[in-house]
Amino acid sequence: MREFTVNEAAKRLLEAENAYILIHRSPDGDCIGSGYALALALRSQGKKAKVLCSDAIPERYHFMLPEAETIEHFEPDIIISADVADEKLIGDTLFEQYAGKTDLCIDHHISNTGYAKELCLDGNAAAACQVVYEILKAMNISVTREMAVCLYTGLATDTGCFMYDNVSPRTLRIAAEIMEQYPDIPYAAINRNMFIVKSMGRMQLDSILTKQLESYADGKCMLVCITKELMDKYGIDESELDGVAGFPLQVEGAEVGIVLKEREKNFFRISMRSADKVNVSDICKCFGGGGHIKAAGCSIEASAEDAKRMLVEAVMKGMQK
Amino acid sequence: MREFTVNEAAKRLLEAENAYILIHRSPDGDCIGSGYALALALRSQGKKAKVLCSDAIPERYHFMLPEAETIEHFEPDIIISADVADEKLIGDTLFEQYAGKTDLCIDHHISNTGYAKELCLDGNAAAACQVVYEILKAMNISVTREMAVCLYTGLATDTGCFMYDNVSPRTLRIAAEIMEQYPDIPYAAINRNMFIVKSMGRMQLDSILTKQLESYADGKCMLVCITKELMDKYGIDESELDGVAGFPLQVEGAEVGIVLKEREKNFFRISMRSADKVNVSDICKCFGGGGHIKAAGCSIEASAEDAKRMLVEAVMKGMQK
Repeated sequence: MREFTVNEAAKRLLEAENAYILIHRSPDGDCIGSGYALALALRSQGKKAKVLCSDAIPERYHFMLPEAETIEHFEPDIIISADVADEKLIGDTLFEQYAGKTDLCIDHHISNTGYAKELCLDGNAAAACQVVYEILKAMNISVTREMAVCLYTGLATDTGCFMYDNVSPRTLRIAAEIMEQYPDIPYAAINRNMFIVKSMGRMQLDSILTKQLESYADGKCMLVCITKELMDKYGIDESELDGVAGFPLQVEGAEVGIVLKEREKNFFRISMRSADKVNVSDICKCFGGGGHIKAAGCSIEASAEDAKRMLVEAVMKGMQK
Repeated sequence: MREFTVNEAAKRLLEAENAYILIHRSPDGDCIGSGYALALALRSQGKKAKVLCSDAIPERYHFMLPEAETIEHFEPDIIISADVADEKLIGDTLFEQYAGKTDLCIDHHISNTGYAKELCLDGNAAAACQVVYEILKAMNISVTREMAVCLYTGLATDTGCFMYDNVSPRTLRIAAEIMEQYPDIPYAAINRNMFIVKSMGRMQLDSILTKQLESYADGKCMLVCITKELMDKYGIDESELDGVAGFPLQVEGAEVGIVLKEREKNFFRISMRSADKVNVSDICKCFGGGGHIKAAGCSIEASAEDAKRMLVEAVMKGMQK
């Protein structure tokens, strides 16, 4: 693996012809934004580019997608990954085909496993979209309106609307530059849809989750366990759970918030969030996961009770550090 | 009334000696931020300055206040108001004493009634703090850490953390400048406390409010009525209701959200929010209130049922415009 600067990544992309861009499974605003902004940018230079994702892009992100397009089949001469910290995160379908084949990875996760031949990583960037923006500038590509929508949405979603401590002056200035160039993009409406709007079902879900909240370590560790049974009982759809990871950390006094989602019987995907000091990336690593210091994840195969017990124990240990 | 530019306001403030700064009742992040940032700035120039508010500053904003200080009694030669769109909003206590006496008003509400002798109004500014920041720059005052905390918090709180459409590139750049000058201010923690953290009581309140949601106009108008009875029943404190105005507008499909809070038996304070097109300032004006196009308020003396009926009728009319 070679580390690439923004300028090196720009040069590499300008030299490439046809690109496949891999983004992570359970796609979010940042990987969709960085993937499609990059694809649009490459196409604007007469290259071919296609974004590949194991999962369908959820409807709430459809506004980010380029207008209907037919992409003829083509063979890539470069495989890029965007916002993919670990190769496994591209999901099983893509992993089978592309494991070990990523040429250039563009990322902002300090936990990046270095699986690509070339890695353009800025661990201080708030979002992969921030890195992509810098690369586009270095490539001297003018940001179109479609790219701007992608990039802004990625910046906004990965920062909780410029709320988290991954926001730097540069993040805000990029948002300002985009907003200045395209004052007519409905930023507030995008933010409202990303951060505020909930279906009545989701609001009722929040009420249910409030009742399910479990408090550990004198309320410093708050936990919610979303079992299949609970989802069936209230008719909750998987897609409704997007963004639920931050739920337990809303509670005053909480330092770590844990959400367990039962994917299959006795198989849980865990999201862990830290309010401030506790390093949840380290904690999730104990279970084979990882992520950011304040936002990480892992998977556990166990009963709900066992999974909870293991997680809470690990968090208690992590808190003592 | 004379309209003042930022430079004229700066000149006026530099000439003044001793200032009282009035902020609105039910103080929020922006009026506290603009009031105290201005007071600190004036004091940094060897002037005397005091912020006056009808209500006590809620505890959640105490981090914004300058370190414990004893202010000797002094007579002002200038009375300033910050973030006060209408003189009545300074509250009864201050109104009795200062009605008609404001020399300079610094504001960002287009609905400003022009009650002050001199008005420095920027209706495009996201927050009064944005106007104050420009004035401090024009006064050539260097922003101290304490002022920075005030100004950032005002910008953040009045924009829903840079979410609403009052945010301009300038708003983001001011936040970037502040963040650059004081990278150690815990911005993310401030935002978390302002926008995310809720007491368990408030989370339970949200569950209660979800149950209380009333839908009108095919869900385009969502309403919540918080009666004294409801508050007593669940032991909800008035201070817990801060920020509840946006609650009904969370619901997917809602265009207008209304919250009625019963202040006294059959006397309601109304908050109205618009998602996009409907002008709720116009609607609230019908009831003697006002505010911004997308965030306004008024008061109604009537039974809950009558108040709701009147409001929903006015909203339905407003939607047809």
